[in-house]
Amino acid sequence: MDPTKIGVHRRASAVPARRTIRRLGGMIQPARQINLALLGFGHVGRAFAHILLKRRKWLLKEFGLEWKITGIATRNHGMAMESAGLPVQKILRAWKSGRILDRYHSGPACSSTTDFIRLCGADVLFETTLLELSGEPATTYIREALGAGIHVVTTNKGPVATHFRALTRLARLRGVRFLYEGTVMDGAPVFNLMRQSLPGTRIHSLRGILNSTTNYILTQMEQGASFGAALQYAQDQGVTEADPLLDLEGWDAAAKLSILIQALMGGSTRPEEIRRKGISEDSGKLVRGAVRRDRRLRLVARAYRQGEKVIGKVEPEELEMFDPLAAIRGLSNILVLNTDTMRELAIVENNPGVEQTAFALFSDFVTLLRRPQA
Amino acid sequence: MDPTKIGVHRRASAVPARRTIRRLGGMIQPARQINLALLGFGHVGRAFAHILLKRRKWLLKEFGLEWKITGIATRNHGMAMESAGLPVQKILRAWKSGRILDRYHSGPACSSTTDFIRLCGADVLFETTLLELSGEPATTYIREALGAGIHVVTTNKGPVATHFRALTRLARLRGVRFLYEGTVMDGAPVFNLMRQSLPGTRIHSLRGILNSTTNYILTQMEQGASFGAALQYAQDQGVTEADPLLDLEGWDAAAKLSILIQALMGGSTRPEEIRRKGISEDSGKLVRGAVRRDRRLRLVARAYRQGEKVIGKVEPEELEMFDPLAAIRGLSNILVLNTDTMRELAIVENNPGVEQTAFALFSDFVTLLRRPQA
Repeated sequence: MDPTKIGVHRRASAVPARRTIRRLGGMIQPARQINLALLGFGHVGRAFAHILLKRRKWLLKEFGLEWKITGIATRNHGMAMESAGLPVQKILRAWKSGRILDRYHSGPACSSTTDFIRLCGADVLFETTLLELSGEPATTYIREALGAGIHVVTTNKGPVATHFRALTRLARLRGVRFLYEGTVMDGAPVFNLMRQSLPGTRIHSLRGILNSTTNYILTQMEQGASFGAALQYAQDQGVTEADPLLDLEGWDAAAKLSILIQALMGGSTRPEEIRRKGISEDSGKLVRGAVRRDRRLRLVARAYRQGEKVIGKVEPEELEMFDPLAAIRGLSNILVLNTDTMRELAIVENNPGVEQTAFALFSDFVTLLRRPQA
Repeated sequence: MDPTKIGVHRRASAVPARRTIRRLGGMIQPARQINLALLGFGHVGRAFAHILLKRRKWLLKEFGLEWKITGIATRNHGMAMESAGLPVQKILRAWKSGRILDRYHSGPACSSTTDFIRLCGADVLFETTLLELSGEPATTYIREALGAGIHVVTTNKGPVATHFRALTRLARLRGVRFLYEGTVMDGAPVFNLMRQSLPGTRIHSLRGILNSTTNYILTQMEQGASFGAALQYAQDQGVTEADPLLDLEGWDAAAKLSILIQALMGGSTRPEEIRRKGISEDSGKLVRGAVRRDRRLRLVARAYRQGEKVIGKVEPEELEMFDPLAAIRGLSNILVLNTDTMRELAIVENNPGVEQTAFALFSDFVTLLRRPQA
């Protein structure tokens, strides 16, 4: 696999009998082919597949690109590889519990996910497995893929927060991209914004509301709901992490903050080095006290420079009503950047859902098509 | 001038005796040279020159680029051309009223701005002359430059709002870029955000607070200030347009909204086609009424689709306190995009100043260095 050839990928076996052609400024050019593999095919992975199908024409028009999915591997639904491309639409329609993928498998036998990565023939691996704070086993998979010269796009905070330097270094070494827009604020451009739209900018400090579950609970409690009822509702909506303590104790926000510090501020603060205080049933008193004083309690993540170091904190804070963070309600998120070029710039994502996380994968995919090397 | 050669510009006369070299992946490469001209050298133009000086090393490192300013033309301070590059630092230090530029002139005599554009030898023209709603004379200058194969970057709303199609078409035809990030929300990425970070996205509708002067006045009146005092203060801060009626009657917001509609939504709604209602002394009653109802009055710009058309409106609206627009106070701006990929996404610029508008010019400059053709 030669990742530098992503723009001119034309495997003899991969080109269909009647080659797709397109007109570009009057010239007829064959479409370039790209192979994608999905590791994890839960809500986000499937929503991403829907986006790919919907944007097939757009990708062809914009990049002269034809894609196929040559592999999907999951924890509970089996695994499938097909070098001619899996019938994604059919798989999505037939989706249900059980090892449904196995029947579409037509490649060599795989005994492990590592085998899958090595054999699936992908140019790009989209990794959306579950968050484990340790970052494993996802880090092993990502390392395997990058090492094999496969671009990796992930929405998984664990590996990025815990092994940021090692993984970005490995990607650079192998001349491929390692992108992770979906790890913070779903598809709202954060890393891409800095990379593309704030050239030469230094972030002095940043703060934000990065965890939807706790913000939802706090704003529900403001309106009189109990902690338990608000948490239950958030869980019913499917927005909490599989283990809700990761949200409540501030681990999710700390992992995101750690990624922001490492990717945007050049710091090296890992999740466990972030001062962290979450919310619990006892927060009710603080919430009500804040409302009485015409203020709002929010779980605020902040990072600031102290000499050469970047300090990170995740804590409930009582905010003035006119603070932009106080206006963020429900599942919405905000990130406020304090910069040398643009002073204070904020980005707000309103009530995101699974489609927005999936859009992050698509947006990273486009980023790497535009610039296959970092 | 061959704009497609922006990346490899090395005029014999422009290369210094000892050629600047840089290392790139072990190879030594001569720096590429680029000539810049500034049309207008007021607060924004001078702030931009400061940014260029400050980022000289960054541009060399990032793009292997050396720049010089070969021309500056102004309405009241004279004009200067120098093919070897003007002594910008010296000019900035010596800046005062009077035709100070003339003494640095060493090119052929220019009898008009059009002459200047033709003769200044620029690869990129930065246009920051005063806003005239008609778009003239700036449109003539921009057309002249684009026609001569010169990239144009502007912060001037008039020409972009009034002649969007013609100017973008001309730029495409000549293979150069026409960029205008600074026309809306100063340096906050709006057009660049859509272009780079929201691939394949369609905007269903948008709304925002786009004019700082009126927002400042409304939020001051909320706190008890009189209309006159608030306006006076805004004028003292230098944030109003030269003619404050352009702000108060909603023309500035309408021009910005028209640009958003044309550039981001594919519409063709021009400023005069936007339903427009401004604020005045009489707005005090509305402001106080809103506050009594625990709400806020804001001058809201909105655009939405109606069949094939895009409708634009600029009007004072009474908003609920939790509306993100209600939280925007003072000189701050907000733009909320309602999209098919990201649902609702907002960008907020807090208390911008002249440096932020100048950063828009720099940010567009980097955009065109990365992608010299649209």
